[in-house]
Amino acid sequence: MPLTPEQEAEIAALRETSRPTLRPVAEGMERHLHLVHPVLDHGFVRVVDYMGDDSSIVQAARVSYGRGTKSVQNDEGLIRYLIRHWHSTPFEMCEIKLHVKLPVFVARQWIRHRTASVNEYSARYSILDREFYIPAREALAAQSAVNNQGRGETLGDDEAARVLDWLREDATQTYDHYEAMISQEGQQGLARELARMNLPMNVYTQWYWKTNLHNLFNFIRLRADAHAQYEIRVYADVLGAVVKDWVPFAWQAFEDFRMGGLSLSAKGVEVLKRRLAGEVVTQETSGMSKGEWREFEGVWGV
Amino acid sequence: MPLTPEQEAEIAALRETSRPTLRPVAEGMERHLHLVHPVLDHGFVRVVDYMGDDSSIVQAARVSYGRGTKSVQNDEGLIRYLIRHWHSTPFEMCEIKLHVKLPVFVARQWIRHRTASVNEYSARYSILDREFYIPAREALAAQSAVNNQGRGETLGDDEAARVLDWLREDATQTYDHYEAMISQEGQQGLARELARMNLPMNVYTQWYWKTNLHNLFNFIRLRADAHAQYEIRVYADVLGAVVKDWVPFAWQAFEDFRMGGLSLSAKGVEVLKRRLAGEVVTQETSGMSKGEWREFEGVWGV
Amino acid sequence: MPLTPEQEAEIAALRETSRPTLRPVAEGMERHLHLVHPVLDHGFVRVVDYMGDDSSIVQAARVSYGRGTKSVQNDEGLIRYLIRHWHSTPFEMCEIKLHVKLPVFVARQWIRHRTASVNEYSARYSILDREFYIPAREALAAQSAVNNQGRGETLGDDEAARVLDWLREDATQTYDHYEAMISQEGQQGLARELARMNLPMNVYTQWYWKTNLHNLFNFIRLRADAHAQYEIRVYADVLGAVVKDWVPFAWQAFEDFRMGGLSLSAKGVEVLKRRLAGEVVTQETSGMSKGEWREFEGVWGV
Amino acid sequence: MPLTPEQEAEIAALRETSRPTLRPVAEGMERHLHLVHPVLDHGFVRVVDYMGDDSSIVQAARVSYGRGTKSVQNDEGLIRYLIRHWHSTPFEMCEIKLHVKLPVFVARQWIRHRTASVNEYSARYSILDREFYIPAREALAAQSAVNNQGRGETLGDDEAARVLDWLREDATQTYDHYEAMISQEGQQGLARELARMNLPMNVYTQWYWKTNLHNLFNFIRLRADAHAQYEIRVYADVLGAVVKDWVPFAWQAFEDFRMGGLSLSAKGVEVLKRRLAGEVVTQETSGMSKGEWREFEGVWGV
Repeated sequence: MPLTPEQEAEIAALRETSRPTLRPVAEGMERHLHLVHPVLDHGFVRVVDYMGDDSSIVQAARVSYGRGTKSVQNDEGLIRYLIRHWHSTPFEMCEIKLHVKLPVFVARQWIRHRTASVNEYSARYSILDREFYIPAREALAAQSAVNNQGRGETLGDDEAARVLDWLREDATQTYDHYEAMISQEGQQGLARELARMNLPMNVYTQWYWKTNLHNLFNFIRLRADAHAQYEIRVYADVLGAVVKDWVPFAWQAFEDFRMGGLSLSAKGVEVLKRRLAGEVVTQETSGMSKGEWREFEGVWGV
Repeated sequence: MPLTPEQEAEIAALRETSRPTLRPVAEGMERHLHLVHPVLDHGFVRVVDYMGDDSSIVQAARVSYGRGTKSVQNDEGLIRYLIRHWHSTPFEMCEIKLHVKLPVFVARQWIRHRTASVNEYSARYSILDREFYIPAREALAAQSAVNNQGRGETLGDDEAARVLDWLREDATQTYDHYEAMISQEGQQGLARELARMNLPMNVYTQWYWKTNLHNLFNFIRLRADAHAQYEIRVYADVLGAVVKDWVPFAWQAFEDFRMGGLSLSAKGVEVLKRRLAGEVVTQETSGMSKGEWREFEGVWGV
Repeated sequence: MPLTPEQEAEIAALRETSRPTLRPVAEGMERHLHLVHPVLDHGFVRVVDYMGDDSSIVQAARVSYGRGTKSVQNDEGLIRYLIRHWHSTPFEMCEIKLHVKLPVFVARQWIRHRTASVNEYSARYSILDREFYIPAREALAAQSAVNNQGRGETLGDDEAARVLDWLREDATQTYDHYEAMISQEGQQGLARELARMNLPMNVYTQWYWKTNLHNLFNFIRLRADAHAQYEIRVYADVLGAVVKDWVPFAWQAFEDFRMGGLSLSAKGVEVLKRRLAGEVVTQETSGMSKGEWREFEGVWGV
Repeated sequence: MPLTPEQEAEIAALRETSRPTLRPVAEGMERHLHLVHPVLDHGFVRVVDYMGDDSSIVQAARVSYGRGTKSVQNDEGLIRYLIRHWHSTPFEMCEIKLHVKLPVFVARQWIRHRTASVNEYSARYSILDREFYIPAREALAAQSAVNNQGRGETLGDDEAARVLDWLREDATQTYDHYEAMISQEGQQGLARELARMNLPMNVYTQWYWKTNLHNLFNFIRLRADAHAQYEIRVYADVLGAVVKDWVPFAWQAFEDFRMGGLSLSAKGVEVLKRRLAGEVVTQETSGMSKGEWREFEGVWGV
């Protein structure tokens, strides 16, 4: 995402305006503040504000323990304990505010995370830029044959070229018409709130988005997952890298217990215990349905 | 919105399957259940479930009063009192579940109402229909000269014809390409989650949307307002008509105190009191800014 | 909880007033409607309204799949799939409204579940009843020696008798003073909103509480857990029994995947895989901390 | 609230540890950070962290306007405009985190504000301090004769003395028994989670509480209102003073449009217009109920 000289100057100015504060400061996050992390062809993520650090999680958790806790648990151990036992409120004590530029079809998935504050660029007031997400050649994948909602193999060259031509052609044509509709030269000019409906869903929008760490973890867990659509996963991956620098203890616990961990059903627990005891368990003797067994086997082998 | 014969049969079957319940029943709402209220050219709203009625609001409010309340207020009076004094929790005791078909750009405004449950048709799994919102001739308005976010006069004939041609043409072409991209005849076929990005924002989607009466009132207050975009206002108007039949006391109070009422600032209160006392107040002596005074004058005259 | 004759008559009348509806009806839930489920010594839970059933979950999930889903999954299988993969929004389509009577210290835990609607009996308006939770003899447990927040062994007879005497004595005395303070005989009578502060936290209050099935599952998972305080667990257990009759498929999946299941960290997964391959893994070679290993061993043995 | 020397030292240390940040800094809020604002006899409010300032509200609002806005509105004017037109999301961009010590009966009102993050001192883990709210002599008011939920005249001396004696006596006795129950000298010692139920609701608890500015405004509007209970109003008043220093433009707009403003019903608007036109309007000709008219007259006179 090439920035305009004005934008580069504005960010440079922000990066130079350091001021004293009595609040908790996360050094790892200060290094990210205001900077643009490019995502996709024209998108980005920028951290524009934050609140709290690992110690804020601990502070909130400790009020619950008060005088009753004899042994002093160290901060990292306490944070791991909280994640392990699904305590969520202490993680709500950290907050992040982002400036994000993203295609509309990604924004539509993103906004499903309801516990957040959003201010989006309004195409009722303002004119959208001529910027569309056109996938990189290697991101063009066929519909998966096994997963109704996923991608399969990469498209062959001819088909990929055809797809890219159509995407570019339609973006150009619909935007030309959008411009022509709202133009006030020699005509009245259609209301922006109407004209925008002609633009395809790979047009870029932008917003400020603010949420707490607990809900950001939910976002990352769902959107950095292998089943998430690639175009939102790349945003979630950037956020993961940011969080790692912001609250390193919380991130490591989250990675171990949420991202890398998994859930077992009561039946799954029982099957594993029988296997550990030397028994050979099959789908028929597992009590699981075929679908459940297939997923179970995918992780634990046969 | 012409229904398919299957859909008509399904709705007829639902309308015939009456069953006994011990729950509160709102007769006015039973008459709406499952039926399609057409909106725009292909959209609709259908109530598919609901919970509670006027008496449920009263029941919840009364638990707060318990034995301490001597005089028995009637239900309507109590509901008016609750609305007048901004009590919101009793109105959360009623719930509604809708099936809505709407253009994507309307859905993007709608979903900003966060306190609701949503399940949307997924264009990752499924193929979108070739259905686009094409405004009626008289809905084609120019950008307002005085309001950056609004509509002004209706477009002239030539310009309107040009706009409609472009909207139809681009809808047709982008959908043709969408179909061609996902087709698996003679090619791999692009993943649906990618191909959908080529569709413009007037394509129709659908969802189940569930919220409580308090939040539905907020939705209607903001979206049935004269400043809301026409294309969402027509949905809000239908919902208003439904709510009127569902909880008539609550609706009437809402209409009187919220839809038809207005807020005064401290300065506004003071100016009105001075005027009632016979004083002539001007912007200069009002303490209001020019913008505030303009709005104030718009309501109260000079 | 002995009901007054008036209350019994009111419930009997409600149970007899069956009316036709076109909404989904859950037969298992109709059997619970309005009836009192006694909990603790004076508390209760009553379902006073509900919305949706297993089919409502399926309906909401299916809109996401639309035409793309070829194989018709049966309802139970789909619900299990949704729970297994942490899909939450379809479960928000069911709603429940309860009338609960409970001690204040239980209410203070309960209300931490924020995504719910509440109307509580107001002790600012009204006079609280002389009803206090006095634990049954066998519920009187000592502070746990190993768990700062839990209970250990049952108290011995002398100590238990002493505790019960104090609880009864203090409840009686504080309520006597409460009554004396608000009395208007021969004095002005203290405002109720002030006098109530003299009452201990085992006094009973009541409220209407409404939430959706997704959040109710969260409530039950946390509060029917062995680590939850007994006095809230008994409420959660009653709710579990109600949900089982209301949405039997969802309940069974919830029981298998949430209540009976468990989470493994990335390290836990790795240790189990090494064990299944025949390796002996110790805390030292597991990569886990001592605390994590202790919990892991508690489930999986050594 | 007399602080312990340890607490005073800790706060002094925090006040001396200034660190550089690239985030927005609100000078007015830095002056409050960590300091104790005493409330009631043993309570306090301390700001322990915050995020954003007036410019953060403006930044979020401006993204909505983008290139479409020609005239540069100044920050204060824009903030007034946002408040006047009930735009709420930009105010969600500011966040505050408090440490609050408060009586349990106040905490029970406070927590009804659901859109917030809370970590409370746990009386399951820990032992509560022997600290109770005992009202000041002049706060002891009789039940209002006209308002079921309010206070009337101050109690006479004898009655006040009696009330204070009971409050002190019962606090002392119940806390003595609480201590005796959990003591492990010569007995097992009752679990803390049980013993706490014997404490009256004027015992102090404490928590960390975090919310955004939009929800804080809702809190202040409801709790700093003349109809709120005095014991929570004093907390809301302190918060108002803090917000005034934090976001002065937002506070002034809030004060003018929310705290000092009022809502008119459609009927109220009509009556005022008729009066301004010289007509004499009575309850009979107003279309209002007697209760509505009484409130209307209370503001606008006859």
